[in-house]
Amino acid sequence: MDLDLTVTTADLAAAASALVRLVPGKLIDPVLSGVLLTADGDGVTLAATDRERAGRVERAAVVHTEGRVLVPAKPLADTLRALELEQVRMVVEGSKLAIRAPGARFALPLLDVDAHPGVAPPPPAVGTVDGAAFATALTTVASAASRDDALPMFTGVRIRAEGDRLVLVATDRYQMAVARLPWQPTGLPVDALVPAALLAEIAKQVDPTGPVALHADRDRFALVWRRGGGTSHAATSVLDGSFLHESKVALSDVDTRVEVDADAMAGAVRRVGLYTDARGVLLLEVGDGEIRLRGADQRAGEAEESVKADVSGGRTPQAYQSRFLTDALRPFLGGRVRLEIQPGMRATTFRAAEPGETDLRYVVMPMLPPKH
Amino acid sequence: MDLDLTVTTADLAAAASALVRLVPGKLIDPVLSGVLLTADGDGVTLAATDRERAGRVERAAVVHTEGRVLVPAKPLADTLRALELEQVRMVVEGSKLAIRAPGARFALPLLDVDAHPGVAPPPPAVGTVDGAAFATALTTVASAASRDDALPMFTGVRIRAEGDRLVLVATDRYQMAVARLPWQPTGLPVDALVPAALLAEIAKQVDPTGPVALHADRDRFALVWRRGGGTSHAATSVLDGSFLHESKVALSDVDTRVEVDADAMAGAVRRVGLYTDARGVLLLEVGDGEIRLRGADQRAGEAEESVKADVSGGRTPQAYQSRFLTDALRPFLGGRVRLEIQPGMRATTFRAAEPGETDLRYVVMPMLPPKH
Repeated sequence: MDLDLTVTTADLAAAASALVRLVPGKLIDPVLSGVLLTADGDGVTLAATDRERAGRVERAAVVHTEGRVLVPAKPLADTLRALELEQVRMVVEGSKLAIRAPGARFALPLLDVDAHPGVAPPPPAVGTVDGAAFATALTTVASAASRDDALPMFTGVRIRAEGDRLVLVATDRYQMAVARLPWQPTGLPVDALVPAALLAEIAKQVDPTGPVALHADRDRFALVWRRGGGTSHAATSVLDGSFLHESKVALSDVDTRVEVDADAMAGAVRRVGLYTDARGVLLLEVGDGEIRLRGADQRAGEAEESVKADVSGGRTPQAYQSRFLTDALRPFLGGRVRLEIQPGMRATTFRAAEPGETDLRYVVMPMLPPKH
Repeated sequence: MDLDLTVTTADLAAAASALVRLVPGKLIDPVLSGVLLTADGDGVTLAATDRERAGRVERAAVVHTEGRVLVPAKPLADTLRALELEQVRMVVEGSKLAIRAPGARFALPLLDVDAHPGVAPPPPAVGTVDGAAFATALTTVASAASRDDALPMFTGVRIRAEGDRLVLVATDRYQMAVARLPWQPTGLPVDALVPAALLAEIAKQVDPTGPVALHADRDRFALVWRRGGGTSHAATSVLDGSFLHESKVALSDVDTRVEVDADAMAGAVRRVGLYTDARGVLLLEVGDGEIRLRGADQRAGEAEESVKADVSGGRTPQAYQSRFLTDALRPFLGGRVRLEIQPGMRATTFRAAEPGETDLRYVVMPMLPPKH
């Protein structure tokens, strides 16, 4: 095994950290906790897989000797990030990959590259989407997924093509987020349930000024984007997501419509939310030209706050967990939000009063009202 | 019970939060989780105690009706912090203290003020010290104390007068910090073991441009300072700290002296510290005109880094936990630090190459060297 290259430290440090976040790795298996480092004429490629997920990041480098090694991923990323110098030299010395800096030498053990399963190229391309719109939609929709690994079906985001629209949907059973945004299909129709945590990380890494390509086959889903002068990709095996369908949320009974400044309502939720019982439930009352939030807790006391609103239809009061209201309002901060309220234990929908190209809806299930 | 006042929201929010941090309160006892709010001609006073600790903060206010009530401390602090308005009105309404804002009302239950033990005035003054120097010394020395409540003796800072010097000392048995700084004694000599966590919080709250007064008697220790136009004080019961004496660290065997740039050494410790075994131990070798840090770990690999240094005396190598080196170097960042190394399992001392008025020493115990 051989390899010798010089690279901009900050650039490779960012790439190595990005890869570690895309593929956190399984500490149990030392081979799968490694990163494949490949130096060739075009630069350096970092790749890793934990069998379920795979990631690959390219960066420019001055390659003195081409080669390919497998080294522990986290020590590589941590060392590059801790270095305080412009350029760094990495060279194979015996059974180590040496990272050389003036007065310092860091030597990572070479792992058995032949024992590594390799990082497959992504499945075929199926279309492209605008980076900024996709990142915003991913961040919002992924936040509605469950973080409870005991319910794997609810930890994913379903990504599905519907003609020239891409539909993203996630729910943890108490709240649901749905985004529809334009895309350019170029291959087979896509329909995949993708881990929300991975998508939330990818949303941070994609270049918002460029496109993101979607790749998919029956078993795998991948996203490909350009960043830092090279191509990055993240791939994952997919679950069956057909159980998860946004049309299952019936909105036939909407009898109260409210339009309100999202920031004003979020501020009131934050304050009145300090006065809630152990369930964190507060009451939303609909009045003339205003909504009123009420909370009460035996220890803290009681609170009420009114927010100016345009109200039409009935005066159905509802109760919600305050943290779900906070989540539901977040995507609409900076503008006005429209609430569609149904009576009884039926869902309330939040959407922008003036939607852009991305149609985003946040659905919250009500709770039994607090006892006074 | 009565009380009616108007106050600058941000100002009272800061005061209530400061008090909650000085006296975190015991949730078990609702009375002791309350804050005594006293409005009189001069303004408003917030006071709390958990029997061991006590705190008191004054602020200016427009008092409409003088009075004194007891309300839950944390909801008061959280509500004031969440309000987005300049001025706030607080008024007793029936069995509640109402916090009134346009369109909103927050009502805290009134607790039984007669069941509260009250907050005693601080013990007699014993001297004053410069706020900035004292805060820096407290922060550094408190960080050397143990956070393990199972060893209460090691969770304190001993504060002791030695003529015109105030001596602060703390240790968790593996590291020790000692600061000597000028003070103006005005009463009995002080010698108290004070909880380090409280002192670290006070160090954040004192005004660095003003003096801090020390108050003490046999059972209690208090600090008094001015902030935000009012006087604050924090008091605590004390432990016997006579077991804790900085002269117990023998420095008779120093045979190696090293002077080095603190930032350069801290950077090397941070990087080489990534390559340490489960104990986190790295080796310090003393060479000609340099020191060399070495670390090795079976998984991560091995590292060495040299830092230019002025060396005199022997060439005793030593091993340390990297996190203790990081702590020991922190107070000296931005300047040069002097290491005095003893052979064997005897302490190494860190002090500034050019000390200011405060003489600060950090003592670190070595570890058995890592096996290679």
